[in-house]
Amino acid sequence: MKLLHTADLHLGKIVSGVSMLEDQRYILNEITKIIKHEEVDGIIIAGDLYDRSVPPTSAVSLLNDTLFHWNVELKLPIYAISGNHDSAERLNFGSAWYKNTQLFMAGKLMKTIEPISLAEAEIWLVPYHEPALVRELMQDDEIRSYEDAMQAITKQIRSVWDSSKAQILVGHAFVAGGIPSDSERQLSVGNVDRVSTTAFDGFDYVALGHLHHPHAISHPTIYYSGSPLKYSFSESQDQKSVRIVSFSGNKLTEVREVPLIPQKDMRMESGTLQDLTTNLLDHPEDYLAIRLEDKGALIDPIGKLRPFYPNILHLERKKLEITTQNEDRFEELMKKDDIELFDQFFEHVRGESLTKKQVDLMTAIFNEVRKEEN
Amino acid sequence: MKLLHTADLHLGKIVSGVSMLEDQRYILNEITKIIKHEEVDGIIIAGDLYDRSVPPTSAVSLLNDTLFHWNVELKLPIYAISGNHDSAERLNFGSAWYKNTQLFMAGKLMKTIEPISLAEAEIWLVPYHEPALVRELMQDDEIRSYEDAMQAITKQIRSVWDSSKAQILVGHAFVAGGIPSDSERQLSVGNVDRVSTTAFDGFDYVALGHLHHPHAISHPTIYYSGSPLKYSFSESQDQKSVRIVSFSGNKLTEVREVPLIPQKDMRMESGTLQDLTTNLLDHPEDYLAIRLEDKGALIDPIGKLRPFYPNILHLERKKLEITTQNEDRFEELMKKDDIELFDQFFEHVRGESLTKKQVDLMTAIFNEVRKEEN
Repeated sequence: MKLLHTADLHLGKIVSGVSMLEDQRYILNEITKIIKHEEVDGIIIAGDLYDRSVPPTSAVSLLNDTLFHWNVELKLPIYAISGNHDSAERLNFGSAWYKNTQLFMAGKLMKTIEPISLAEAEIWLVPYHEPALVRELMQDDEIRSYEDAMQAITKQIRSVWDSSKAQILVGHAFVAGGIPSDSERQLSVGNVDRVSTTAFDGFDYVALGHLHHPHAISHPTIYYSGSPLKYSFSESQDQKSVRIVSFSGNKLTEVREVPLIPQKDMRMESGTLQDLTTNLLDHPEDYLAIRLEDKGALIDPIGKLRPFYPNILHLERKKLEITTQNEDRFEELMKKDDIELFDQFFEHVRGESLTKKQVDLMTAIFNEVRKEEN
Repeated sequence: MKLLHTADLHLGKIVSGVSMLEDQRYILNEITKIIKHEEVDGIIIAGDLYDRSVPPTSAVSLLNDTLFHWNVELKLPIYAISGNHDSAERLNFGSAWYKNTQLFMAGKLMKTIEPISLAEAEIWLVPYHEPALVRELMQDDEIRSYEDAMQAITKQIRSVWDSSKAQILVGHAFVAGGIPSDSERQLSVGNVDRVSTTAFDGFDYVALGHLHHPHAISHPTIYYSGSPLKYSFSESQDQKSVRIVSFSGNKLTEVREVPLIPQKDMRMESGTLQDLTTNLLDHPEDYLAIRLEDKGALIDPIGKLRPFYPNILHLERKKLEITTQNEDRFEELMKKDDIELFDQFFEHVRGESLTKKQVDLMTAIFNEVRKEEN
């Protein structure tokens, strides 16, 4: 058996005001070519089919047409779950009907997960879920974290699975050790959203979505497919791909990447305005973040670059780099007292430091304010 | 063959800030009872399944569960179209899969409508559409109005139909002569949204949605089922119902109403605050519009009524009736000149008319203002 594993389609995504829909249509067509060439037996989509709970209707039509082609026309089973960007209820609508043609769409997590039972494998669809939902479904107050929730779910699965078959789990989660990129929406602060790899002990293949890097985790049986397109410049170094997962009987025999070549790449470039407008970069229609290395003032640099590079998504100046040091700067500022801070501000605005008289005046004002606060 | 005809479910509707979802769940269950008792062979839903293009997820789940019960569990064909309140694209999602169990969901109008072909009938699903869409689909610049659009569609249908079978059309439109209620969103100004009954010449039964009154039109073959619930006080006198439509072979034999009794009625009541709080009305939990007949000042009347009538949606005072005469009043006012109008205002505020001196003063002021305007 051969499965294609993808995830994080984010249909309808807008990056810096630009709709990715045509790029998405193109890359889905590339995936269709791989599906046909590899002659896969099924397709896994591990969540984030849409970019938001109410996607634009153009994205709704694109997903409908894609699933129709893969499932009804090519007659391939599809194993799909909702991700944190999807609306569980909206994606779930109609799933009872889709099953008739082996389109398995798990929008909502159910109390008991029923496996999709194949001749030599069981596939478990675990849609994205928050701990509170699992706590309620399982009536277990001990479930407080994403880790607890996934452990509880996989424990339940292990208690009923048919261990003579290959065990495949499809999930959408942040597995500990995974490397996130800018385009995954922050789920929660700190590490409370992490699930450890031990939650998936015993599974033969864990098909994950959520992190967009295809190598976000390094593990013999746990894989992120990564998104089919770059959705942020932090992904510009990724080689996007889908995974082809092969089984011989109930044994996992191969996990292989097939690269995806987008219609337009997303990449970072730098140079002076003069350079960039005289020596044109290759593939000027790509989505670009350009860092201008000029030091002096520039008049309308974006207007000058656009005719050559129509899809610039981000433009920055070299001297603005200081803003990336904000964290150190903040710690430094925390050490100063009010007068020192005001003096720094005054100097920034007026180009000269406070006089003795001005320091005294400001000190009096600060004292008065503090008095009123008490 | 026996069909049940309903429409305008408006799932997820909110009336005066109150969600109708539980009333909708109740009435859908009442319809289920009728479906079973009448042993119908199919169900028509003539548009406005939802109240808005992006309904709340609770409404999405309710529609999913209802359609699942009727179509998959009771194994009944469903013939549904989108209305002006629905999103054509969103409702259309998955329709290719629904067909497998004879759930026919026409969200988007297509260039050529294919009939659903039964042994002795053809059913044509004509989703809500604006003239511009039909103009584009048919490549016919002459299509400017709703009337043109529907005439073009039915002409096309007549050119291909099998006249040996009963011809049934399911549509969502404002048919000329129909009586609207407050809860249908105004489609357009004037009569440009009207479709004449001749557009449906030759059809044996036209199952319409859009107008909420079950007798919005009186015609031997064209029927509005009306909404299953009252959605505005202008519908308070309606007896809501579903229609049972029977055919013998290809002949329409009977069109019959089966009344629907809601969990909570929607009705208008009047009385003094004293009366209403001492002699309690029947069914005090109904959705009420109350007109207080008291003449003097009242302190917190809604607060005094709520404990007895928890679902008051509207409260008005008798003396406010004058506002309903606004139209006549406006015409009367248009005849007066500035001084007359000001005199009326002055008298209203001060209780006495302008003196001669005041009239002269105001005339001078008006003249000065007019001079500045020129």
